[in-house]
Amino acid sequence: MSTVTTARVSETPVAEADLGLALVAAFEGAHHERRMAGRAAFPAEGMLRDPLLGLSEARAWTLHRLDELVAAGFGQSIVAVEQATADTQIQSLIDFETIAYGDLSVAIKSGVQHGLFGGAIAGLGTPAHHQRFLADALSLRVLGCFAMTERGHGSDVASLETTISYDPDAGEFVVHSPHESSAKTYIGNAAAHGQMATVFGQLVVDGVERGVHCILVPLRDADGNPLPGVTLGDNGHKGGLLGVDNGTIAFDHVRVPRDMLLDRFGSVDAQGRYVSSIENPNRRFFTMLGALVRGRICIGGGAAISARRALSIAVRYAERRTQFRHPNSDDESPLLDYLAHQRKLLPAIARAYALGFAQNELIDSYGTVSSAADHDPRAQRALETLAAGLKVLNTDFANAAIQTCREACGGAGYMSENQLTQLRADTDVFATFEGDNTVLLQLVAKGVLTDYRDVWGGLGRLGLVQASARMVGSAVIERTGAGLLAERLAGTARRKGDSAAFYDRGWHAWMFEERERHSVDSLARRMRAADRDSFEQVNAMQDHVLFVARAHMERVVLDSFIAGIEACPDGAARQTLEELCTLFALTSLESDAGWFLAHNRMSDTRAKALRRQINQVCADLRPRAVALVEGFGVPAEWLGAAMLDA
Amino acid sequence: MSTVTTARVSETPVAEADLGLALVAAFEGAHHERRMAGRAAFPAEGMLRDPLLGLSEARAWTLHRLDELVAAGFGQSIVAVEQATADTQIQSLIDFETIAYGDLSVAIKSGVQHGLFGGAIAGLGTPAHHQRFLADALSLRVLGCFAMTERGHGSDVASLETTISYDPDAGEFVVHSPHESSAKTYIGNAAAHGQMATVFGQLVVDGVERGVHCILVPLRDADGNPLPGVTLGDNGHKGGLLGVDNGTIAFDHVRVPRDMLLDRFGSVDAQGRYVSSIENPNRRFFTMLGALVRGRICIGGGAAISARRALSIAVRYAERRTQFRHPNSDDESPLLDYLAHQRKLLPAIARAYALGFAQNELIDSYGTVSSAADHDPRAQRALETLAAGLKVLNTDFANAAIQTCREACGGAGYMSENQLTQLRADTDVFATFEGDNTVLLQLVAKGVLTDYRDVWGGLGRLGLVQASARMVGSAVIERTGAGLLAERLAGTARRKGDSAAFYDRGWHAWMFEERERHSVDSLARRMRAADRDSFEQVNAMQDHVLFVARAHMERVVLDSFIAGIEACPDGAARQTLEELCTLFALTSLESDAGWFLAHNRMSDTRAKALRRQINQVCADLRPRAVALVEGFGVPAEWLGAAMLDA
Repeated sequence: MSTVTTARVSETPVAEADLGLALVAAFEGAHHERRMAGRAAFPAEGMLRDPLLGLSEARAWTLHRLDELVAAGFGQSIVAVEQATADTQIQSLIDFETIAYGDLSVAIKSGVQHGLFGGAIAGLGTPAHHQRFLADALSLRVLGCFAMTERGHGSDVASLETTISYDPDAGEFVVHSPHESSAKTYIGNAAAHGQMATVFGQLVVDGVERGVHCILVPLRDADGNPLPGVTLGDNGHKGGLLGVDNGTIAFDHVRVPRDMLLDRFGSVDAQGRYVSSIENPNRRFFTMLGALVRGRICIGGGAAISARRALSIAVRYAERRTQFRHPNSDDESPLLDYLAHQRKLLPAIARAYALGFAQNELIDSYGTVSSAADHDPRAQRALETLAAGLKVLNTDFANAAIQTCREACGGAGYMSENQLTQLRADTDVFATFEGDNTVLLQLVAKGVLTDYRDVWGGLGRLGLVQASARMVGSAVIERTGAGLLAERLAGTARRKGDSAAFYDRGWHAWMFEERERHSVDSLARRMRAADRDSFEQVNAMQDHVLFVARAHMERVVLDSFIAGIEACPDGAARQTLEELCTLFALTSLESDAGWFLAHNRMSDTRAKALRRQINQVCADLRPRAVALVEGFGVPAEWLGAAMLDA
Repeated sequence: MSTVTTARVSETPVAEADLGLALVAAFEGAHHERRMAGRAAFPAEGMLRDPLLGLSEARAWTLHRLDELVAAGFGQSIVAVEQATADTQIQSLIDFETIAYGDLSVAIKSGVQHGLFGGAIAGLGTPAHHQRFLADALSLRVLGCFAMTERGHGSDVASLETTISYDPDAGEFVVHSPHESSAKTYIGNAAAHGQMATVFGQLVVDGVERGVHCILVPLRDADGNPLPGVTLGDNGHKGGLLGVDNGTIAFDHVRVPRDMLLDRFGSVDAQGRYVSSIENPNRRFFTMLGALVRGRICIGGGAAISARRALSIAVRYAERRTQFRHPNSDDESPLLDYLAHQRKLLPAIARAYALGFAQNELIDSYGTVSSAADHDPRAQRALETLAAGLKVLNTDFANAAIQTCREACGGAGYMSENQLTQLRADTDVFATFEGDNTVLLQLVAKGVLTDYRDVWGGLGRLGLVQASARMVGSAVIERTGAGLLAERLAGTARRKGDSAAFYDRGWHAWMFEERERHSVDSLARRMRAADRDSFEQVNAMQDHVLFVARAHMERVVLDSFIAGIEACPDGAARQTLEELCTLFALTSLESDAGWFLAHNRMSDTRAKALRRQINQVCADLRPRAVALVEGFGVPAEWLGAAMLDA
């Protein structure tokens, strides 16, 4: 079986359990061993929260559960930037993924404590901070907040209002919330448990604004009472994540010593002078935010785990739940025998695989870039674009897929004991925190356009047109590593044109490439023609910008899937991955069929056939459905859905 | 301004408040006065539940709140079938809609008590039952369950396992749950409050199975303890609707007197003989279920109200919430100024209007059909098809729109005090109960195909092809009433062809008609060619069936919107409705652009322009956004979102 094509039907019958195991190994790829070790270390008993717990009980339970996880070694891989290796960095991500097999409030509380609070100390602090604060943060001896978002500003971090003003006489910083809108809000650990916070605000030194910086501020005394000048509030009941104590923090001229500023990128020296290794304030701001990219990767990864849990539940239920008598038989048909049910669950499974392969690459990239001795701005930008894009794709997908699973399980799906509504409620806000998805997609498009400008920048408008007419396709989309195989396949298919088979991987790669290339190209033209200072003109392109971001990310994800298959040894698992990849590609194409047709990238005949072809792949995969979800690696005994025990 | 076209931009500036009021009047149409009266009677104080209430507190609160509503006259329009007038029938629907402005657990508990328990007595019982039981049900003196769904069977009601066996010696019925899968489940009022139930099961008389019938069975004694032979369970915590005490009911040979059978359509006489006015058991079954159509209409209506509440909240927030500085200005832009935000909210508003107009027609139809002296099977079928279809469209839309609103409000949207997550959690299951949406769409398609067969049935396959080639379009889609205007507009546009303006209502009507006609036509052909007894062959068409159902419903909804505009006096409201209708139509076309292109119903140029045209209508409507949601008729002071008070 060549890489280029996918046979429609598996030719060899396979033992399901073996297939599941082989799929897990392929799907988890380079991180399989590490993930298995994570699952082996995970204390599974009591991993799911009783939905009947009230708000304060849920918070107490979550903190207690976090203690257990820390005792088992979780969350301990957040290390000071100078000690970071690819190994520690990757382990910190796998830790989060593993915790996400259990209650998501626990995962988010760990994310706040280890990833954000600990991560800010590790990534924005200097060795003195690491020595003094990091161990306490990781061990939970000091519970901490990551106080960035304010009432007035969430997505627009550069406009935060909190001030961090240096008082040279006292050698102290004064942290202050000048307006009601400056209060920090939705801050995890603020309502109940947090003793200290990494606070983001505008640094003012000698009357000069130096932009957003981060400082450590103690919040509560040993008895849990707010310290002088600190006002703490409770965000109360939320749509989910009830175990996380989100709250508000306002500062009234709170004084902290000079050495509390996490001053890796910008410092105030003993003489009261501002010093920074990065001159450009804009670059400094983005460098600081870039040091925090881990949070975004974790949220995408956690969303992916949630979707896999939901799909594992819904598929197993659809396999056993029957409804309506089969004609000419006394038996009823399992839900999964119905085409409509297959169309709900199987394309979602295929997409979960696709996103998983892409996440593997993101994890690798994070390991490399964040532990590199030398800062490579281009690699950092690529990492941030990928992290932002996969965060969006994973969280949007998780929310949609979990909802589909809930509905696919009917009334049973609505009962909390079957876990789906809890997953759905908890995952919901993943679309918002660590970057609103609509805002992040704009970041992705910006990254894509920057690459585009790097390649095409030297050419005038006429030159651009000529060049893009001449160099059809590939030059605009610069591929490295995982993308090279896809690029080669697309090249082959392009020569074949519309005669390619629907399961021809090269055709998929070509179509995905065309969607991205054409939309980037036309957006770049519009951008050049527009007045960048005109709100109206830039705003009018916003939907185009979002389309470009999605088209780019879909292509990146397909590239990863293709590379993931290439890394899988021949056999039933590889064959199954080929079919899943086809299903992922065809459903992505179907969702934009209007675009492909209107832009003459697909014939009417082919577009009309898409639906039939997708149905066929679903029918082919259906007998292996349970093995497919086994391939997600979620232990069946951890699903915790009562309806599967019946 | 003629009905046919919509000017792109309003020509006259209008006072927003006046516009909002005029829109409510137009939107609520024939039911405006009744809805205003409902709002005036609605006890608004304490209408929203504190999300911090635990399960038993929430249930108690909900029951208490239901008492208040009954005291205010709500739920009292469920009348015995022989007393039903269009007025009483419509009032029962408006009552439910009005209650849905408040906590949805209360609405659903009223739906269970009045609509289902009371409705089963009223619709399936005879005058003796009405006299003996109805008043107590409506006044809440007897709290009741509607015990239809079983563990083993939800969607497939005909296969219920509970038996209702007549014992001629005792003159009693024996109600029994033969298997574990026969226990009733997800039954509202079962876990805590229900004293009696209308139980659906297989009637067995003298050893002969007579199909599903409904019988009254007492559940609890005066102290709330289960009666002998009755086992009651609690479904516990759910994904939402925590105030409704859903539970399980199992019967162990429970005996009830002969006169407890709700025997309007099938009875056992004093001599122990089964008698029914309907000979055909299949027709009897569907007649009984048809008598319960009100529940489905209410669920669709309640979902619509929920979506309007969410959109009212999100639009008002997007108008006041600013983020990111406007270029060349110190001000930040309101979220609603961003195209991406407009594209999230404004098409949803347009669709909410469209569905509202269609629901108005459904309400009228229910009033007429359900109070008619003579049973008209064709009118009944049309009503059931419309009820099923609008239930699906409204509930799918509500779930999607509320989620969009949640995300559009960012972190604030996730806080329970802002109501969106509560609405989302409560509405979720609307997609499942009173008929799973996927199953209901199949009912819709079945209704459409039956109409089709009535028209085309006499023709052989060759005749069919010739006829449909000759009579392009309209003959397949039989329109009455509201649809006639749309039909006329479509006819005009068809003669113009592709040169019609994008805001030409006739073009919209024509395209919607084509989508339905062609897909019904091709499905009918496939059905004729298929072996109806082959699971595989019928199953292979399931996605086609779902497409037909949606295409049909979209067309019906557009027809209603057009008729609704026609009934609106000239002026700013009518002009605004025209623009909303265009937005609804264009987004519906855009979502199926692939279909229209592949089937040569739309040119590439036109398809490519759709996005731009939708953006333009959004931009035109944006300044009137608050008036648009005022037009939904949800009093601003009832929204209860804390972020709007800030």
